[in-house]
Amino acid sequence: MVSAEAGVRRYKWDVKYEFKSPDCYRKLAITINGKTPGPTILAQQGDTVIVEVTNGLATENLAIHWHGIRQIGSPWSDGTEGVTQCPILPGDTFTYRFIVDRAGLYGSIRVLLPDGVAEPFTYDYDRSIILNDWYHASTYEQAAGLSSIPFVWVGEPQSLLIQGKGKFDCSKLATPSSNPTACNTTNPECLPYVMTVVPGKTYRLRISSVTALSALSFQIEGHNMTVVEADGHYVEPIVVQNLFIYSGETYSVLIKIDQEPSRNYWITTNIVGRNATATTPPGLAILNYYPNHPKRVPPTDPPAGPIWNDIAPRLAQSVAIKARQGYVHTPPPKSDRAIVLLNTQNKIDGYNRWSVNNVSFTLPHTPYLIALKENLHHVFDQHPPPDRLHEFTTYDIYGVVNNTNATSSNAIYRLKFNSTVDIILQNANTMTVNNSETHPWHLHGHDFWVLGYGTGKFDAENDPKKYNLANPIMKNTVAVHPYGWTALRFVADNPGVWAFHCHIESHFYMGMGVVFEEGVEKVGKLPSEIMGCGETKAFKRP
Amino acid sequence: MVSAEAGVRRYKWDVKYEFKSPDCYRKLAITINGKTPGPTILAQQGDTVIVEVTNGLATENLAIHWHGIRQIGSPWSDGTEGVTQCPILPGDTFTYRFIVDRAGLYGSIRVLLPDGVAEPFTYDYDRSIILNDWYHASTYEQAAGLSSIPFVWVGEPQSLLIQGKGKFDCSKLATPSSNPTACNTTNPECLPYVMTVVPGKTYRLRISSVTALSALSFQIEGHNMTVVEADGHYVEPIVVQNLFIYSGETYSVLIKIDQEPSRNYWITTNIVGRNATATTPPGLAILNYYPNHPKRVPPTDPPAGPIWNDIAPRLAQSVAIKARQGYVHTPPPKSDRAIVLLNTQNKIDGYNRWSVNNVSFTLPHTPYLIALKENLHHVFDQHPPPDRLHEFTTYDIYGVVNNTNATSSNAIYRLKFNSTVDIILQNANTMTVNNSETHPWHLHGHDFWVLGYGTGKFDAENDPKKYNLANPIMKNTVAVHPYGWTALRFVADNPGVWAFHCHIESHFYMGMGVVFEEGVEKVGKLPSEIMGCGETKAFKRP
Repeated sequence: MVSAEAGVRRYKWDVKYEFKSPDCYRKLAITINGKTPGPTILAQQGDTVIVEVTNGLATENLAIHWHGIRQIGSPWSDGTEGVTQCPILPGDTFTYRFIVDRAGLYGSIRVLLPDGVAEPFTYDYDRSIILNDWYHASTYEQAAGLSSIPFVWVGEPQSLLIQGKGKFDCSKLATPSSNPTACNTTNPECLPYVMTVVPGKTYRLRISSVTALSALSFQIEGHNMTVVEADGHYVEPIVVQNLFIYSGETYSVLIKIDQEPSRNYWITTNIVGRNATATTPPGLAILNYYPNHPKRVPPTDPPAGPIWNDIAPRLAQSVAIKARQGYVHTPPPKSDRAIVLLNTQNKIDGYNRWSVNNVSFTLPHTPYLIALKENLHHVFDQHPPPDRLHEFTTYDIYGVVNNTNATSSNAIYRLKFNSTVDIILQNANTMTVNNSETHPWHLHGHDFWVLGYGTGKFDAENDPKKYNLANPIMKNTVAVHPYGWTALRFVADNPGVWAFHCHIESHFYMGMGVVFEEGVEKVGKLPSEIMGCGETKAFKRP
Repeated sequence: MVSAEAGVRRYKWDVKYEFKSPDCYRKLAITINGKTPGPTILAQQGDTVIVEVTNGLATENLAIHWHGIRQIGSPWSDGTEGVTQCPILPGDTFTYRFIVDRAGLYGSIRVLLPDGVAEPFTYDYDRSIILNDWYHASTYEQAAGLSSIPFVWVGEPQSLLIQGKGKFDCSKLATPSSNPTACNTTNPECLPYVMTVVPGKTYRLRISSVTALSALSFQIEGHNMTVVEADGHYVEPIVVQNLFIYSGETYSVLIKIDQEPSRNYWITTNIVGRNATATTPPGLAILNYYPNHPKRVPPTDPPAGPIWNDIAPRLAQSVAIKARQGYVHTPPPKSDRAIVLLNTQNKIDGYNRWSVNNVSFTLPHTPYLIALKENLHHVFDQHPPPDRLHEFTTYDIYGVVNNTNATSSNAIYRLKFNSTVDIILQNANTMTVNNSETHPWHLHGHDFWVLGYGTGKFDAENDPKKYNLANPIMKNTVAVHPYGWTALRFVADNPGVWAFHCHIESHFYMGMGVVFEEGVEKVGKLPSEIMGCGETKAFKRP
């Protein structure tokens, strides 16, 4: 942090490539100020955060999204290339400026409560843990495979990282590399993360998942966890042995350091929802009971994670997460518009794609925010996608369906300003028989209420009657379970253009997303710094 | 080619990533219209070539340099990012437009003579061969290593490609990959290149080297080659058994198909100048004597290349290349300015760098051409680098010298328009004892006369007296041999801004280059398409 004048938090971030060995295997990683995961932004609710991001990559463009920040009044700072800004070119510096309007943890942005306001729970210490899945193939290799005919799937990650540390089994690497530093399990860079705790104390753990693909279970050997917060909102406390967390989600749990104090305990994370048992070992860290030695290996085996393909407990956790009494934001009782988004996997022109209502999303070359404000109507498809697929009621969500009507498009949904919108995300079978995946959908610019989950086909007549309007949790990322549906509500009250997409990188890349516009006419003058690409490129003296 | 109206050659090139296995090992390659090497541009001297380049990479920027084309009147089409244009952003299309003013072969641009004009030699058939060195590590990995402390050197290439085909020994790959397509020596993609020839005929081979690092020897088993052209200029014929060719050079040789016709012969290429005997097998192709089967392996072993560290024959070839009688362009007898560029390897701030007169070149964020035309003086260092290092006469070119004065800079040389400039490139010892490398220097916007080569320190008093002013060859790329010097002359008569640099990618990346400006005030209005980066980014309606 550069300075700490009252209410303004300034940061300078340099982004570049460096060789890192977070799981003992040396590969290029994108770092912020030399670190991965990057630095944590610490701010107090209501503060203005200013981050000067310098793109130190040689030939690649950049944008940084501030996941979970609603960007009220600063829609151009959302960091969504193609939606809210042009990319930051190599060597350029872009200044993000936004207000953190709500306490909680958003990835690596930790927002503290205003002075004099208390949390509805108590704890002695506060710790953050970032979970990640880690691939040895570059994103270029992964993306080229996804765009190939025949399709080349990236597969399961090589390792899981807890707070940036994992352990890859170097013996899987064929003959030893001629370079002894290429994979070295004794490299101190890949020592497991150690969280030292004091017996008798209560810890708040702020856990976030930034995985590219994996749904995770997170567990601390011998310790129950009490979930108290999700995506920045207080949760009616629930006790779990393992926390299911999807890419883009954040949770706070409380743990009591109340076990036998002469030893250490395992912190573990496992992949659920996909069969990675043969490919990806669990991520391991150490809960170090002070004053035991932090490197002392726990005497027991790490707990096995839950069965990967058992959906029931994951759905149960989703359903159990409600707004905490006294902190309920009541949703509007009715919506003005309901959009049913059928998620399907399709072939389009021979390519594997994901579609939403038979539209596989592609980004235009001119960011929507600029196009809409400047009336550049020709830069994206003006014909909106459907609110509901014509064939929805007859669609077989359990079958392999050839959606030959699926097409690629950059069309968007335009929402009436201040209207209340329901979104029903409907899952279905993929192109593989008896297979339906889990999709964590993430909305920019908003929190939404989670009104309900269901299994099977959404029934527009009867299911809305079962919506939880009493104490629904507000979130910005929510899971859609296999063969199920998830119903959300939000108020379109934040002028701007906002992406809504599956947070699995490869799924969004393959078209699993939509874009909402609301009140764009109320957006103030756009900063010229966001220009420079597509039809916004031209010469003007700085 | 899209159309062929008289005098105008139009092409559309789509650039993207694809998995390719040119040496049997599957890796990402940048392709043009699905091919690597890219398509050949065929034009006639005087034609206007128009190439619409679409950047189909997802996040990376692009520019394409038309090596060997002087860009007279179109300095903004030279394709040098940071010098003559802003990069082409992902999804954008940029149109290069230039006149091919001289016949010859420039990489994959083959320029034919005007109608009615004959070559000074005859042949029956005309073939092009592109030579390349091939790395399995991505350019990102290579570049990150070069920018690391400690320095990580990319090493020798995994294979050499002849016309895009090589053969990597997959058994070197540790345990077999779980993916059988990852390395497969029976993949038809990596069948050796076959050139079928008819006995009794004479072939012109247009050979170009696009290597990232390697100096090469090129040889055709049992066949002498007569060098008749270099970098688009006719050469007084010389007969060689093996042709030495440096990155960025092009040559034409004539071969007579006059050997025992019942068999095929090897075409080989080997690395010279660096010890790659243990790491890089020779590149192999087949000279197929019709009607033998094209896949029939020659009955003999491929000829061994020359000894890698024998400089004498390489220097001898350089010296032997003279302009052909009747095609001599006589240089001005005297120069107005002589610039002596001492090439050194240095540590700067702990990083390995190459320097020229103690200046290690870095690119500014605003291209020079735009900065100079628009008087943006603050975007690069206005203090020019020296024409000659103060300590040049006492500098020990045979020792490891700590040039603690070496600094990084984006300053440039400004040349008087129409003046005659001599450049003496002086080689020296690297940071390794008893080591001096070969550097192929490439000049944009010009051909230069090669006035002479020498071993040891350039003597400004006596060496110029030995310059060849009678029949020097004109080239755009020339080798500077270990511990030697090379003297060039050119007339600064092409308004624009022109890079002059070592054509070894890693060397230029580490600072081994300079930039010349001449007559920029005579450059016409710059096309706005080249804007958009650094201080030329802003919003203007298209």
